[in-house]
Amino acid sequence: MTEHPNQPVRDLTEEELLARIIPRLPQGPATVLGPGDDAAVVAAPDGRFVVTTDVLVEDRHFRRAWSSGCDVGWRAVMQNLADVAAMGARPTAVVTSLVMPPDLEVTWVESLADGMAAACAPHQVGAVGGDLSSGPVVMISVTAHGDLQGREPVLRDGARVGDRVCHAGVLGRSAAGLAALEAGIVARCHSPSEPGQVTDDQRHLDAVVRDAVGGYVRPDPPLAAGPAAAAAGVRAMMDLSDGLLRDAGRMARSSGVQLDLSGDGLRPDVEVLAELAQACEDDPWRWVLTGGEDHGLLAVFGPDQELPERFREIGTIAAHEPGRPWVTLDGAAPPVDGAGWDHFAPGAMS
Amino acid sequence: MTEHPNQPVRDLTEEELLARIIPRLPQGPATVLGPGDDAAVVAAPDGRFVVTTDVLVEDRHFRRAWSSGCDVGWRAVMQNLADVAAMGARPTAVVTSLVMPPDLEVTWVESLADGMAAACAPHQVGAVGGDLSSGPVVMISVTAHGDLQGREPVLRDGARVGDRVCHAGVLGRSAAGLAALEAGIVARCHSPSEPGQVTDDQRHLDAVVRDAVGGYVRPDPPLAAGPAAAAAGVRAMMDLSDGLLRDAGRMARSSGVQLDLSGDGLRPDVEVLAELAQACEDDPWRWVLTGGEDHGLLAVFGPDQELPERFREIGTIAAHEPGRPWVTLDGAAPPVDGAGWDHFAPGAMS
Repeated sequence: MTEHPNQPVRDLTEEELLARIIPRLPQGPATVLGPGDDAAVVAAPDGRFVVTTDVLVEDRHFRRAWSSGCDVGWRAVMQNLADVAAMGARPTAVVTSLVMPPDLEVTWVESLADGMAAACAPHQVGAVGGDLSSGPVVMISVTAHGDLQGREPVLRDGARVGDRVCHAGVLGRSAAGLAALEAGIVARCHSPSEPGQVTDDQRHLDAVVRDAVGGYVRPDPPLAAGPAAAAAGVRAMMDLSDGLLRDAGRMARSSGVQLDLSGDGLRPDVEVLAELAQACEDDPWRWVLTGGEDHGLLAVFGPDQELPERFREIGTIAAHEPGRPWVTLDGAAPPVDGAGWDHFAPGAMS
Repeated sequence: MTEHPNQPVRDLTEEELLARIIPRLPQGPATVLGPGDDAAVVAAPDGRFVVTTDVLVEDRHFRRAWSSGCDVGWRAVMQNLADVAAMGARPTAVVTSLVMPPDLEVTWVESLADGMAAACAPHQVGAVGGDLSSGPVVMISVTAHGDLQGREPVLRDGARVGDRVCHAGVLGRSAAGLAALEAGIVARCHSPSEPGQVTDDQRHLDAVVRDAVGGYVRPDPPLAAGPAAAAAGVRAMMDLSDGLLRDAGRMARSSGVQLDLSGDGLRPDVEVLAELAQACEDDPWRWVLTGGEDHGLLAVFGPDQELPERFREIGTIAAHEPGRPWVTLDGAAPPVDGAGWDHFAPGAMS
């Protein structure tokens, strides 16, 4: 068949399309049997496995104008690996269902596979199977698996009064990146031939925009911090996908405690985004407190536990009193609405 | 919130919708940790697990006019459990991504959960987690897991010359059901007050229609036959999802043999559908040879192996000669096009 650069997937049979995808995907050390049969086989050395699934839907979670195939593949995998890490497990394998419009370019799908591979390979995760179908928009559902390495899974209900609330990763970065894209704020490429044209402030803002948009299209949470926290005896842990306030509220309710965030602890996250927020006419505290999709790890350690690498303290655990908020900021109700991301709210897009 | 019968999902938050779904879903004996945390934990007693994923897309794989929520939930689970069984494994747990339009009725989603539960519960399969999102059409991606119980996975490449080709389940039933729906042929309800109005022929056709449409909306493959075949030393096995000729071709190529189907072996499957095929002006051989989505098990046993329950012989394995078809019927090229189901073919609907 003659190739042309915009060849749509409808020109290929399912087997031909699989032949374009599968060689791009890595197999990991846990892969006993990879793609090609009715099902894959994955090692589960301690006799259990962790499993989680998350879906990305075009025009709901991403736009093809803003995210390349590579970005979407990366993000679809990474948001699942973060859930595995949040249980204290090491990710081992993913399977994927991919729905796509018949006019989607084959090169976009190849790029998606490359993005999945880029997210999997450094963590030795195998992409062991999948299913393809056509549909009205791109939808990618990834199921990720992990190995608890003999430890107990880390749940959300273990926080106790006096514990320290910690975080590993970034906060508000993805929300800031989306806001920049929506406001049409683009990081400029600075030509060395016109050094006088660009102020240091402009260079700084461009770097922040680049970082924020990168955080939106390719979140890169510190996955290894999850098993490290579990090994260090973390009391409770979860992945932040729906925003700090909303997810912290879930942990607080699960544990029956009040989770008090520290303004000082969060200020560095806010300050790095302040200039961009001004450009977007938005509130950097809103991004940090309610922005979802950063997939960092919220973890609660005991007062005397040594924090593993990447974690820093952002609050403390107090007793919850009836009628009081589950999550506070410096002891008071947070200054922004904590609803965060709701998948069915009209017009929501993350 | 006041309930009304056609309440759409957009009226509920994600947590409220989950609260309607999760209590309807069963947990199985392999469920170590069910829904509610970042991920679930499932037992894998022999240190490995089988994993497979398959997606159903509205207006591609089903229409809401022809399949209830319950039917779609059943079929989404069952097509995956069949893949697990085809590896010789016992299914243990599923996770699900569900995408739905905001105006979908909550009752439809509850019905979908009931259908998933109905497919899982008899096999002691737990529905351990999932993800919800909105999107333009209903899309349900299920990932199923299974336990090999210490046996090796059964692949497609073990067929040898002289072996017997066997099948457990039904053939052509789903294709016949879809054809009946497309032709507007509906099984009538016969009132006992008008016994003289209905001929025995009509009663028989109605029973066939009911059975075929049932096979289309709720395929019910003999899952236990998979592990039973593995325990009996089956040489090769796969689930028939894309039609007998197409899937048998995959097995033949994997094994490097010719798979010769027996007209006598398949005739009972054809005969039961003959009358309905006439009413649909279709060919019952085409349904039996190329109809997909029945999810029965195609299995190859050695010449002297005792067949486990549910399996019957439908062919033999011969040497493959270059230039000859991989799959034959009574030694000759099959009388219908063997392409079967292709997910990207224009206008295809199964």
